[in-house]
This record gives sequence, structure tokens and C-alpha cells, in this order.
Amino acid sequence: MTKITFKIAENGVKEVEKSVKGGIRILDAALSINLRLTSICGGRGSCGKCKMKVLSGHELLTDVTPIEKKLMTDEELKEGYRLACLARVKEKTGTLKLQIPKTSILTEQILQVEGVDLHVSLNPMVQKYFVELPKPNIENPVSDEDRLIVELEKQFKLDKIKLGAKIIHDLPLILREANWKVTAVTWNGEIIAVEKGDSSRRNYGFAVDIGTTKVAGFLVDLDTGKTICRRGIMNPQIKHGEDVVSRITYVMEKGQKGLKELQKEIIQGINQLMVNCCRETGVSEENIYEHVFVGNTCMQLLFLGVWPVYLALSPYTPVLRRGVNIDSAELGLKGNKGAKTYFLPVIGGFVGADNVAVVLVTDILNSEERVMAIDVGTNTEIDIGNKEIVMATSCASGPAFEGMHIKHGMKAAAGAIERFSVDISDPDKVYYLTIGDKKPIGICGSAMIDIVANLFKAGLIDERGTFNKDLLGTVERLRKGEKGLEYVIAWKEETESSEDIVFTQQDVREVQKAKAAIHTGAKLLMKEMKLKEEDIYKVYIAGAFGNYIDPENARVIGMYPEFPLKIIEFIGNAAGTGARLTLLSKEKRRYAENISEKVKYLELAAHKGFSKEYFDSLYIPHREINEYPHVKKLLGKIRSHR
Amino acid sequence: MTKITFKIAENGVKEVEKSVKGGIRILDAALSINLRLTSICGGRGSCGKCKMKVLSGHELLTDVTPIEKKLMTDEELKEGYRLACLARVKEKTGTLKLQIPKTSILTEQILQVEGVDLHVSLNPMVQKYFVELPKPNIENPVSDEDRLIVELEKQFKLDKIKLGAKIIHDLPLILREANWKVTAVTWNGEIIAVEKGDSSRRNYGFAVDIGTTKVAGFLVDLDTGKTICRRGIMNPQIKHGEDVVSRITYVMEKGQKGLKELQKEIIQGINQLMVNCCRETGVSEENIYEHVFVGNTCMQLLFLGVWPVYLALSPYTPVLRRGVNIDSAELGLKGNKGAKTYFLPVIGGFVGADNVAVVLVTDILNSEERVMAIDVGTNTEIDIGNKEIVMATSCASGPAFEGMHIKHGMKAAAGAIERFSVDISDPDKVYYLTIGDKKPIGICGSAMIDIVANLFKAGLIDERGTFNKDLLGTVERLRKGEKGLEYVIAWKEETESSEDIVFTQQDVREVQKAKAAIHTGAKLLMKEMKLKEEDIYKVYIAGAFGNYIDPENARVIGMYPEFPLKIIEFIGNAAGTGARLTLLSKEKRRYAENISEKVKYLELAAHKGFSKEYFDSLYIPHREINEYPHVKKLLGKIRSHR
Repeated sequence: MTKITFKIAENGVKEVEKSVKGGIRILDAALSINLRLTSICGGRGSCGKCKMKVLSGHELLTDVTPIEKKLMTDEELKEGYRLACLARVKEKTGTLKLQIPKTSILTEQILQVEGVDLHVSLNPMVQKYFVELPKPNIENPVSDEDRLIVELEKQFKLDKIKLGAKIIHDLPLILREANWKVTAVTWNGEIIAVEKGDSSRRNYGFAVDIGTTKVAGFLVDLDTGKTICRRGIMNPQIKHGEDVVSRITYVMEKGQKGLKELQKEIIQGINQLMVNCCRETGVSEENIYEHVFVGNTCMQLLFLGVWPVYLALSPYTPVLRRGVNIDSAELGLKGNKGAKTYFLPVIGGFVGADNVAVVLVTDILNSEERVMAIDVGTNTEIDIGNKEIVMATSCASGPAFEGMHIKHGMKAAAGAIERFSVDISDPDKVYYLTIGDKKPIGICGSAMIDIVANLFKAGLIDERGTFNKDLLGTVERLRKGEKGLEYVIAWKEETESSEDIVFTQQDVREVQKAKAAIHTGAKLLMKEMKLKEEDIYKVYIAGAFGNYIDPENARVIGMYPEFPLKIIEFIGNAAGTGARLTLLSKEKRRYAENISEKVKYLELAAHKGFSKEYFDSLYIPHREINEYPHVKKLLGKIRSHR
Repeated sequence: MTKITFKIAENGVKEVEKSVKGGIRILDAALSINLRLTSICGGRGSCGKCKMKVLSGHELLTDVTPIEKKLMTDEELKEGYRLACLARVKEKTGTLKLQIPKTSILTEQILQVEGVDLHVSLNPMVQKYFVELPKPNIENPVSDEDRLIVELEKQFKLDKIKLGAKIIHDLPLILREANWKVTAVTWNGEIIAVEKGDSSRRNYGFAVDIGTTKVAGFLVDLDTGKTICRRGIMNPQIKHGEDVVSRITYVMEKGQKGLKELQKEIIQGINQLMVNCCRETGVSEENIYEHVFVGNTCMQLLFLGVWPVYLALSPYTPVLRRGVNIDSAELGLKGNKGAKTYFLPVIGGFVGADNVAVVLVTDILNSEERVMAIDVGTNTEIDIGNKEIVMATSCASGPAFEGMHIKHGMKAAAGAIERFSVDISDPDKVYYLTIGDKKPIGICGSAMIDIVANLFKAGLIDERGTFNKDLLGTVERLRKGEKGLEYVIAWKEETESSEDIVFTQQDVREVQKAKAAIHTGAKLLMKEMKLKEEDIYKVYIAGAFGNYIDPENARVIGMYPEFPLKIIEFIGNAAGTGARLTLLSKEKRRYAENISEKVKYLELAAHKGFSKEYFDSLYIPHREINEYPHVKKLLGKIRSHR
């Protein structure tokens, strides 16, 4: 029997031990302790995604295979990395120590996001207090207001509590109907609701990340700090235009009426999200006392019903900068009638509260070392800095990664191909994973990166992203489509719709445009700050699909400057996480305001190097291939093996 | 030529000199310097109201007449008091020094009220600031919010200014349409409006005293501190009941719908007052930024739409105690859309914000000596105390003094008989003054006190208030009416309506009930505090009609315990004045909150001595005539002359 110690890098490091028989693959040994490793090819030794590092006990494993040598870099091999699907345990007694990197773990987005939540000490703006009040009598005829406030201040050692103006109407009735046993709900010291009996544990908030394309809602239990439901919808405003500029153009054309229309749409969408979350969890809408929002500056203004036009006109000034506090009822949001809304502060230009949330989650403002954060979305925000200075910019990367403009593009839902791999020795041999292990329906953002990277590595497209028509007839999956060449990702026999799922020349172009915009933003911001790749200590990648992106493939296509893979960390929907943090913690809210004051905005539209950099970035990975030495080396290696 | 120095006790003491010829009456000499003395009988030497004190130069005046001896007390005669209509200047050279007491000056209520205003240093919650903002450009693309706030803070040395949630919608449009020259309106550091150009001098507030019967509104210029318009209306809720208890009963019967109805009525009434004031002064409603309210606790709850029922049920607890801040728009009040409403704090039972305002104006909480304040209204509030302790109570005195339930009763408007006098030697010889010197239409509160006092002094009614039917046939004005005896105040030949204006037996009863309630409150509160009449240093009488009451006649009928006349001071609508003070001064607002905390409420309904004292107080002046030694002596004197 061999004992394996798995060191799993997830929410800190977890160690699990397991005794196994000889002959077993590490991939299967991991599965036996419920640890699912990433494997797009299904353990066929082709995708190279189930990397793990052998810390000790190399002698207990079968030898390194030629495929492993092909799929991993020399550095990785030197450091002792193996592929879990190819390494088998020998019939030997001993202890094998394995380190499983985060990127090799097939995990639900939820886990990593929760990982961030755990670092917050629970101190929400909304607090609930159950009190039993002394009944009034002729000797003690103090007002209902004083009776409640004095008792709250005494029992809970509170200070300067005051009654909210909206709850006074029925207060005398509630106190008496409840026989003087009530739960007071306070927000920042203001009593916003008084409920009969003890309802102190039913305390919820709703955090929303309003994306240009997608809206994510999180129902958070403010009593435990747990997110008990998360749901997403398309932003209903999308019918008036896909990007921020087209939404603003709509308002310019339609005037105040158009603005009200867009506001109503997003509010209705959010209400629907809330209703769904409540229905699913059995939470009453009445028990939602605070709504917290993040979104770019355009989403912010449309949500608040503020004239957004000057955002799109030079000098691109936002209307608001600080966090906005407003009664939720005034916006028409569902929830308790005394509920409060907080829209996190913004930074500048289109860089909004979503980015403040990303800086909050990544804690860049407290970092000694220089870090970069990229929040990929229809508008992608990029921050670079440390505690000395942080700069931010945004770039219009478009909605391709969210499934738009891609022939078979779709959002990350059940049936979406989320990982993809091509056997570089046989471009007709492909592997993919779908969400929920369903028959494939379409392709989501993370797979698009895999597809472009794999097509490139396999030589099916060149550095300009153009399909190699010389392979027509040789590679069965490459064929002529309606609009030029296309590559078949899944044959109709395999798909839900019984139609082939393809990736077209146009799709490749869309991915190129998106990744070029992101790369340009990152590169120009680095230039502006006079930084080189080696000056960056860590790169956080955020975005609704962030966890699923393959960092190596993203590097192969040149989505960001070439950084060592180990400094890249995926943090999921950090904007949503940041929103939730401010729901849970007053301190984080103050920190958010601080971030908004300190982070400096760089307007890219005004940057003289923009056009050239964007053009160069359209190449795969980049026109200046020498700036991508790792990718260059990898390509050379692959080609020598082919 | 004789030189007269008039020392006029009005807003401090004013000295005016005038040289006059011999033979002139002092009454006329006063008129020549525009000093109108009180004279109900028109200078016929009958009403005794034009008293003045001769400080020096007695020898320059004609001798004291028998009528003066009859109409004044021995003390007054000893102190050198004369009647200005009977004392004439002799043909002698010399200097005559006269002191004209406040009560002998016929003055408009407005003056005394303004006198109180003058002691406030202007520091309203609402401030307006005109700023010229630097235009945004690509080098300085800060948000509209920061641009405005930073400039305000810099130019006006302000701190922690924030944007109100309601003004964000059009902010970018206003700033640009105004070419970056705007006026910001702040309330307690929150920007509640932004206006184009320089509107900093157009800054108004509206103060309202919501009485059970009458509502008084004051349009105040917050830039100068001046009240530029005051208007009154009947409380529109009066159709549902005249006193607080009947209004509450209406809500009990009709439920929430009834409450909403009453709230709507008072709001509409106040809006009408505001519209009238604005129309009259040319002020735009848009420039009213704050509304301040006082009223008893029932008026407060009905105005705010708060369930008031428990106010009327033992132990009579109010719902709210502290001041209420609420957006005016939420109440449906006219004014700027960002306007704020402040309802002053209350004390307890039915003793509300109107009484807090009275304590604010009289400054009892800072008084070394013990003072009493009586605010006469449908509900009359009484305070006694000094800086050690102040206690307050209220009594249901009814709306008689406001003209209700009195056959020819009316409010103090043009044509109302406001002063009345009977020649005690000839009960058919009467004198009266009307407001605006118009033909009489009816009788207002101040004259009712004069009527009852004079009928009593002339022996037409006895100490039980019953008409002396033995005089039927002897006194022409005394006659049988529809419901018992009645006395003709003005013959139809003199009146506007060509009908006799009478005062009926029932009218006398109504005045008795009202004055008994007030007396009972004052007496019991004194008892509770173990105080005698001589322990009280000053008595303030407030109420819409306060300035016009004759303090001596009020003492004759026993409206309050017997105090020396010189300690009685009339302060007009002190509730309204207090409301205006808080509109003008943040400090006064803090002081009001302090008053609400410190003044102790005494519930009279629970007092065991209530019934006996009330019964005794129905007598004129009181069943225990020995408690009214002055009145007793005066009556003896009058009777001996008759």
C-alpha cells in the first residue's frame, strides 16, 4: 500500500491522506477522495491540464512519459510536475507527497469566491436587535420612541440611535400588537424597520454586479455572512445596444424618456433576480434590508436615473464619484420598505464601482509589491499598483467572452463547452468539457480562449488569426462555411441540437479584438507607469468566467503581457464579491470610499500610443513575438514535435 | 410750552420728547408723536385702559379726577398712575416725565413677535452658496460631484459636504446649462438643490403653527431673518371635531383611511397658506427649502400620518418625542423638491412642539427666577419653572376664545370687536374697538374676556356667571333672547350685518369653562410644585390673541391665579415665533431638543384634585374669592361707587 498526501491549494492549503493500491492513476486516486482534477481530454493524456507537483516520493510513481515532456515546459519538468492522468502509483510501500495547484482543480466558481468572503469580520450596516420593552403606565408614560430607543441603547450598548422617518406611521400599532416584544432593524444607527417578535436571525442583503451584458445577484445572509443564492440574467438594456456607448447614444436620442426606460428595465431585472433568489431559498423579500451595487459608471448612472451623456463626450467626466446612499423604495427596488441602497463609489471615465470592488477584493492599496488586476467583461478594467500608487483604466473589449457575436457563443450555463483541447499531433482529435456534463449546446468564454490557443498551437490558424486553408481536405474538422473557413468543435451526433458546433473565422477575429483591447489596456498602463513584466508581482484575473480561463492558453493568445503562470491568480466575479464584502462590513465600505479617492484614472482614449499597441495586440500572441519568449519557446517546441 | 418725555416700554425702553401747548390731553399729545394708547371708550374716561405713570412733573398736570379714582386701584394711584384721556397739561413751563406701560400701548401683534426674533443670530440649516466652477478638461476630468463639492469646501471653508440623493439626476445638465456658475443649497451639509446662476439671496423657509382650531403660517426670508408674510386659516380638520379627542375618535372609527384623510386635509391647508404667502410676496415656491412645524402631539401625529389613537387612551403616551426630520416631498408639501421638514420635538401627553416653542421663546430653561408660561388655545399648555426644573401640563380649554361656540364669536379679523368696556355707572353705555376700525361683525377672544369682566364689574352677572334678571327692564341692553338672557354688545344700527351683536348666557358659560380649565391647569401645576402666587416672578401669556388680552380683565374673570399685573407679559403667538426661531438658527434647534428632554410632563387627568379645582374655578373670579384679594378689593370699591 502506498500512502498519498495531497496538499490542495484551495482556501489556504488543505492536506488529505489516502492509502492506495499499486497501479492506480493519480487522477483516479484524487477522485477517490472527491478531488476532481481538471481534465478536458477525459484523462487521455492529451490536454495537459491535470498538472500536479510531486514534492517527495518520485520513486513511487511510473516514469515521466514522452507526452508529459511534450505538454509541459522544461521548468515545470525540472520542478517535478507530472500529469495526474499519466502518472501511476507503483506496487511499492512508501509515502507520496503531491501538491495540487489551484489551476488543476476543477472547482465551482462559488468556492473561490467564498474563499475571499472568509477574510471579513461580520459587521454589516444592517443590524437586528430583539428587545422586550417595559409596558407604559401612568407613572412611566414616555413616548413609544423613547421607550424603544432607550431600551435598545441600554441593552445593546448602542449610541445615538434614531427613528427612521418611514417607520413612524405604524410604530404604535406594531409595539402593542407585538405586546412590546419587537425586533428593531438598524442601518447606520437609524431604525429602518420594527418587526413583531424575534426576527433577529432573518437578516438579508442583496448584492448586485450590474454588468453591461450580464447582471449577477447575490442573496446574502447578514446574520451568518453566507451567500445563500446567486443568480444571473442578461442585462435587459442590451436590446438598446451592447456596449456603454450605444446605451448612452440611446439616451441622447430619446432624452429623459429613454433614460427612464433604461432605468426601469434594469430595476425590473434586478427585482426579478431578487424574487427568484427569495423563492428558491424561502427568504421573504421583507427581510432584505440593504441592496448594494457595483457596475461601471454608465451602468451606475442608468441605474440611478442620472443623465449619462457627458460620460461619452470628451473629457469623459463621470457625474458622481463617491458612494451613493439612497432609499431603495425611491428606486422601486423590492425588499423591506425601509431598505437602503448603497452604490459603491467609482474611479473615473467608465471605470466604476465594479473596479473599486476588484481593488477592494485584491487589496492592492495595501500591497507592498506591485500587482495588476484585470476584470474581464464587455468593458474590461485594469489596475496596476501597490500601496504607493494605483492607476486604473478601462477598455472596450466587447461582449465576445460573454457569448455575444460568436456564432455558437453562449453564457456559462449548463451545456456550454467550457474547456477545449486539440491534439496537436492530430487536429481532428478534440476534447471538450461541458458545464454540467450535458450534451454541448454552445461555447462559453473560457472555451473560446482554449479554442483560439489550441487552433494556433495546432497550426490551424496563423499569428494573424487566419485559418490555414492549406489544411482544407487534410483536417476533416476544417471546412468552408457560409462566411469563410470554420472549424468543427463538436459534430452534430454529439450535440444537443443535432447541429455541428463550429468556430468560424469571424469568431476568431472577435476573440482577437477582445484580447487585443485587454492587452492594450494592460500594456499602456504599464508603460504609463514605466513598468516591465518583471516588475509585476501578481496578476489577478477577475470576471464572471475568470475561474474557468486557462491561464496558459490566455497567455498563448496574448490576452495579457507575458507573465509567469504562477503569478496569475483567478478571483472569479471579484466585482460581485466586493459588493458582498461591503454588505457584510462597514470597514470594507469605508475602504471602498478610500479606494475611490486614491486610485488614479488614466484615460486611454487620449493616449497617443493606443492605435499602434492595439494593432500589434491583434496578433497571436502579439506582433512583437519577442515580448512573448515563453510562448515563442513553446511554439518552437510544439512545432518540432509535430 | 411744556416738554413731555415719554418713556415707552416697547422692545426695550424708548424715550421720545415732545413740546406741547397747555390744555392738551396726554392721549392726544401721545398721538402727535404717533404713539397710540389703548382706549376702548375712545377717550371718554370710561374704560380706564390708557393708564400711564407720571415719573415727575405731577404739578404740570390737571388734578386726579373722581373717575380716575374709581377706575384705578389705590396702589396705582399711590404709584402715580393717571389716565391719559383725563390728565391734561397745564399752561405751565416745565418737563413732564411719563412712563407708558406696554399694556397701555395699542400695538400690532407683529411688533412684539418681531422683538423676539431680533435676539437670534442668523444661522439657518439652509445655506446657499454661489460658486463658479473650473470647467472640466482632459487634464482635469474629475466628476461633476467632486468639482462642485471641492470648490464649495474650498471657497466657503466647508467640511464634509455631500450630495443629496434627489439632486443627482439632472446635476450634469444643470452644471453645463449654467456654464458652471451655480448656486448650491445645503441643508445640514447636504446639497439639496443646485440652481443655475446666482440665486443665493432667494432663500426662504416656511414656519407653521398647527393649532387644533387655527393654523398660522410664516414665510421667512432666511437671508435676512425677516418674516415677510404671515397668514392664518382654520384647521381644515375641524369638520371632523373641534378638539383633539374628537379628531382621534374619528381616526378610531375610520381607521387608516380616516388618518390619511385628516393628514391630506392639513397638508392641503398648509400648501394653500404657502401658495397665498408666495403669491403675495412674489416669492417662488421653488425657493422654499425648509418647512418647520409646531403643534400639539395630536396635530403632530395627524400631520405626519402616524396612528394617534393611544394618545387618547391611558396612559396617554405620545408616539414620538424627539424632533422629526423628513423630506417635505414625502409629505406632499409644496416648495423646492429637495426641501426638508422639521417638526419640533414634543414633551408628553398632548403637550407638543408648540409648547417646546413657547419654552424656547421664553427661555424658561435658562431663567434664574421661577416663571410661568400659558399658551392659550383650544388646548392650553402651561409651564412653570426655572433652570432647575420645568414642568408642563395641558388642559382642554376649548375653542371659545377662538370664536367657536360663542353666538357672535369670530376670529381676530377685520370687523371683530377686540376690546370692550361698560360704564359701570351706566350699564347701557358701552365702548368697543374693532379690528381695522370697521363696523362690527362679531366678537373675538380678547373682547370676550373684556365683556365677561365688565358685565361682572357692572353687576350684570354674578360670581356664578348668571345674568342678574332683576336688571331686566332697568338696563336696556339686557333682554330675553331665544335661549335665556342676553346682553346687547352693539345695536344693529352700528353693525355690518344690521343685526344686534349679543353676548348670551351660554356665551358667558363658554368663557367660564375655558377660563376655568386654564386656571385649573395653572393652579394644579403650582400645587404640584409647591408654589404660591408670590413664588412666580413672571407670567408669560401666549396665544394667537395674546397681545390683545387685557391682563386686568383676565385677572378679574380669574383666567389665571392672581398675579400682580406688572409681572404679566404678552408674547403673542410664541409657538409660531419658536418655530421661526428654529428656522433661523441651528443653535435654537438644538436648544429645542434639549427642552424636550428636560421639561417634565404632568398628566392632569390623573390628578386627584382636578374636579374640585375645576368646579371652584368656574366661579368669577374663583369660588375662594380670598385667593383674589386685588379683585375682591376692586369689586368692593366699584360697588361702593355704584
